Amino acid sequence: MDGSLSGPGDISTPGRVAGPEEGVTAQELALAARNHGLPLEALRYDVTPPGLHYVLVHYDIPMTGADGWRLTVGGRVLRPLDLDLDALRARPAVTRRVTLECAGNGRARLTPRPVSQPWLVEAVGTAEWTGVPLAALLAEAGVAEEAVEAVFTGADHGIERGVEQDYRRSLPLAAAADPARDVLVAYAMNGAPLPPQHGSPLRLVVPGWYGMAHVKWLHDITLTDTPYTGFQQSVAYRLRQEAADPGEPVSLMAPRALMVPPGFPDFMSRTRVVRPGSVSLIGRAWSGHGPISRVEISEDGGVVWTEAERRHDPAHPWAWCAWRHMWTATPGLRHLTVRATDAAGNVQPLTGPWNRGGFANNAVQRVEVLCTPDASAGRADGA
Amino acid sequence: MDGSLSGPGDISTPGRVAGPEEGVTAQELALAARNHGLPLEALRYDVTPPGLHYVLVHYDIPMTGADGWRLTVGGRVLRPLDLDLDALRARPAVTRRVTLECAGNGRARLTPRPVSQPWLVEAVGTAEWTGVPLAALLAEAGVAEEAVEAVFTGADHGIERGVEQDYRRSLPLAAAADPARDVLVAYAMNGAPLPPQHGSPLRLVVPGWYGMAHVKWLHDITLTDTPYTGFQQSVAYRLRQEAADPGEPVSLMAPRALMVPPGFPDFMSRTRVVRPGSVSLIGRAWSGHGPISRVEISEDGGVVWTEAERRHDPAHPWAWCAWRHMWTATPGLRHLTVRATDAAGNVQPLTGPWNRGGFANNAVQRVEVLCTPDASAGRADGA
Repeated sequence: MDGSLSGPGDISTPGRVAGPEEGVTAQELALAARNHGLPLEALRYDVTPPGLHYVLVHYDIPMTGADGWRLTVGGRVLRPLDLDLDALRARPAVTRRVTLECAGNGRARLTPRPVSQPWLVEAVGTAEWTGVPLAALLAEAGVAEEAVEAVFTGADHGIERGVEQDYRRSLPLAAAADPARDVLVAYAMNGAPLPPQHGSPLRLVVPGWYGMAHVKWLHDITLTDTPYTGFQQSVAYRLRQEAADPGEPVSLMAPRALMVPPGFPDFMSRTRVVRPGSVSLIGRAWSGHGPISRVEISEDGGVVWTEAERRHDPAHPWAWCAWRHMWTATPGLRHLTVRATDAAGNVQPLTGPWNRGGFANNAVQRVEVLCTPDASAGRADGA
Repeated sequence: MDGSLSGPGDISTPGRVAGPEEGVTAQELALAARNHGLPLEALRYDVTPPGLHYVLVHYDIPMTGADGWRLTVGGRVLRPLDLDLDALRARPAVTRRVTLECAGNGRARLTPRPVSQPWLVEAVGTAEWTGVPLAALLAEAGVAEEAVEAVFTGADHGIERGVEQDYRRSLPLAAAADPARDVLVAYAMNGAPLPPQHGSPLRLVVPGWYGMAHVKWLHDITLTDTPYTGFQQSVAYRLRQEAADPGEPVSLMAPRALMVPPGFPDFMSRTRVVRPGSVSLIGRAWSGHGPISRVEISEDGGVVWTEAERRHDPAHPWAWCAWRHMWTATPGLRHLTVRATDAAGNVQPLTGPWNRGGFANNAVQRVEVLCTPDASAGRADGA
């Protein structure tokens, strides 16, 4: 029983928005089963343990390895480079602790819901990345006067809305070549070689930017004299109200605070249960626009806000900060909310900004907590 | 704005089956975003790299660590044990390569769909587990004559269908104390201490059984003189047609074969694209009932089957076997299917056995592949 020949258009359809009554589709579910978020209790770690950091892979994890891998640096440069891993490791290395968030984080909380990887709030993680500063590599190659952008090509290959491609993104040269931006060509994560799903053996790390800029399985950097207009730059990752809008590009992470949900959960609803009394709320906050200047907690769904205590580690300016707040739980169903404000004055909104791609929805996290009437809840498991 | 007091029943509802038109719910999506499957291309590894192995956590990953952790062995034993990690590590250790699959794998492919963690086919992984044989620990403690089961308690705490509990499961003593069953109290995974999400610092590993038996964050083993009837044994993990059925317990993994989807994917539909010609299909197959005796491929949706070549590694009887089959792709939309048969004569079905919990659905994997008319597909990404 052969199927009839279909063009790629039938298997690779345009972006769309879910209908008003439409649940999460089987295709979205397949993406949710492959890609994974940070279980929110893992916000307690300064550096996310391996396997708990969020992962988003556009196509397949390519079959790559350190043996024979080469990074080429070419285009509008004076001295093209062609380096193997040993050559990269022989160069001066730096390690940066970086909080990394998917641009689609929050997408599935939008109404109507853009149909794609259905993140709620958990597409984030923090790792220690070790590698060679991109600014140093570009200085070594010599940037030609006419260069305006650096284009990064990864080894993951697929088709997206009808366009077959290797994953490829660009950065303005001003960001790519600025040592203060700390852009890295990284070969280690938390002190070990990159795991396959995080770009083994080489990836870009662009502190402050959403994940789409951090090209994994990186094998080529080409400087261009015109802005790059490929799929991931001009079609995907734009903030659009209508499909025909050119849209603004997605770039820096909007501010977001997340809380470790307190108490313990119900398996299915994930609603939390706490006992009455003092409950220590903890979490993290970050922004690509600058340091977090305020974290606030609301116990009434966002009417009254109380400032939480923050702890910044000056050694790690690109990483999330920790926050803490003591909450007195009283019996009943409670609605906790947390919001972050950054030094640039951006405040997390109660309702996220809608766009067709579902990008950068930094609406506040809402956590439903049932505080029991007394020190017991439910029934003990009969043994 | 305080919520009114609600009993746990409102946040912790009975199991249910989705309505005929009901998409995946927000609660199921929250589970899918937390827990994660094996990206199918990772079937190419004999041992699954860290972070790609499936993870299912009932409640939260508890905040545990090796410092101060103790394992107690008590109940119907002659010499109760109370061991710290150093004491366990000082005992003779074994390492076993074990394929581990969630009992709910395949749940979201059932019709009607039981509402819970919505796995498709990817809730599996293979790891090298190192630890102390449970049979040796029980021999050391001395099994009392009246003992019939071993009950294992983990540190993860939550509420499920109204029952507050620590995660707890039992094994028949015949399985627990049999050295040939290779049940382990494991403290290392792939040569490193257990990651938080896999049970740090200690877990049970029960080769051949679905994941619910492999109790994580293990801190107590109690031998009992009556069968354990707690929630995870008598309420959850039963094969039931109706809610009131007692149901058969879920135990050994049913046979399953999975394929690395060939070619490259479309981002959203995950449909595969290949060029015409020879395509090497590879994958894995496993069963808890015995070795895999046959793997077959169908190119027509399950009418005609061709046997694939298998490679068993006799050193690893509890791990999946590898299989390979050369497929000649011709232009059109193709429907590949793979099925496994085990030495006990169990054959994977085309349509999975339905039950209210959505357990052990080992219906064959189906992979849709578009073979292009010639050596090009789609359009190249314009740079």
